[in-house]
Amino acid sequence: MAQQSEALAYEPRDAILEAAAWCFMERGFNATSIDDIARQLSATKGMVYHYFDSKAELFFEIHHRAMDALLDEVRPVASSALPASQRFSEMARRYVKTLIVTRHYQRTVSEAVQMVLRSSTTETQRQQLTSLQDRRNHCEALFLSVLEQGIEEGSMLAQRPRIAIKPVFGAMNSVISWYHPREDETPEQLDQLVAEVVDVALKGVMGSN
Amino acid sequence: MAQQSEALAYEPRDAILEAAAWCFMERGFNATSIDDIARQLSATKGMVYHYFDSKAELFFEIHHRAMDALLDEVRPVASSALPASQRFSEMARRYVKTLIVTRHYQRTVSEAVQMVLRSSTTETQRQQLTSLQDRRNHCEALFLSVLEQGIEEGSMLAQRPRIAIKPVFGAMNSVISWYHPREDETPEQLDQLVAEVVDVALKGVMGSN
Repeated sequence: MAQQSEALAYEPRDAILEAAAWCFMERGFNATSIDDIARQLSATKGMVYHYFDSKAELFFEIHHRAMDALLDEVRPVASSALPASQRFSEMARRYVKTLIVTRHYQRTVSEAVQMVLRSSTTETQRQQLTSLQDRRNHCEALFLSVLEQGIEEGSMLAQRPRIAIKPVFGAMNSVISWYHPREDETPEQLDQLVAEVVDVALKGVMGSN
Repeated sequence: MAQQSEALAYEPRDAILEAAAWCFMERGFNATSIDDIARQLSATKGMVYHYFDSKAELFFEIHHRAMDALLDEVRPVASSALPASQRFSEMARRYVKTLIVTRHYQRTVSEAVQMVLRSSTTETQRQQLTSLQDRRNHCEALFLSVLEQGIEEGSMLAQRPRIAIKPVFGAMNSVISWYHPREDETPEQLDQLVAEVVDVALKGVMGSN
């Protein structure tokens, strides 16, 4: 499986995943057929099946890439030498921006995971879901550990860090459901929006300095 | 339609809705049958159909009650005489607590609304969905208007209130997906949890006093 997380929608596999993610986002996972995905690509159903066995396989690969995109951005900052509160802010900025930029992947995940969980029956699928859950937990654990370091350093605060991290993630993740790009949105306007969201989302765990 | 929002699971309609909400939460809307709901009630399918024509009708009534429960709690505070920042905090406390207490209703809504939206075809259902959307917007508008008053009073802050309110709601709404009651949780512990969530969720729009 290719590990490139973005901007490589030229390889057939990548193009198929891009098309599938958009279809899942617009129509929902259940309502999307392999035919719809092929049509979106101006390709044949046979071409899609040449690369992916099923809609479930597409979903799992989309989920993996959605998590790769987030972890690739957040992980290097988590282990950098900056003070914890600065690391936390930069991780949050990258996390929210990546959610927005890869929203067709992220929204697919958030909508489909419940459905797949409930209807999935094969042992392999269940193992894949567990591994995906682990990666989501890993992302939250990175933030939690930096929060705990920030509390130790005195620059961050939380009564119970494990509780406090939940509304922080809720605030950040909310962009998946409400963000819609304005037609004429500039990169600067997007960065400004990300900064405003991060500011509101993090203040509850930032020291009052 | 009865308007009682809670603690009245004794009338048949209420008992059916309670059972349906739990089933939808545990199994998902799609995977739940009227048979499952009847079984949960130790009643017959015929009894359920005596009160509700379809699963969709149950869903709409659950959604209405979920919104009633939130609006009934939040609305009186929004128009009270307290300073805006205190009103906002109290609205948030009631909102989060109600989300938790009525989580089987709220989780049904958040999971099923996308699915129903996509598969619903009848004109009546579409009208109902629009009216439900209006009520969700109304709840957010109440918070937004108090935030704007708080900014005017100088006790609250936001660069763009319409943006800032989104992560605040994301933080509050997150309880629907992560809260699970501990077996021995006391009412005081629940209130403490609500206070911690509200504290983190709101600090981003509270003045630094």
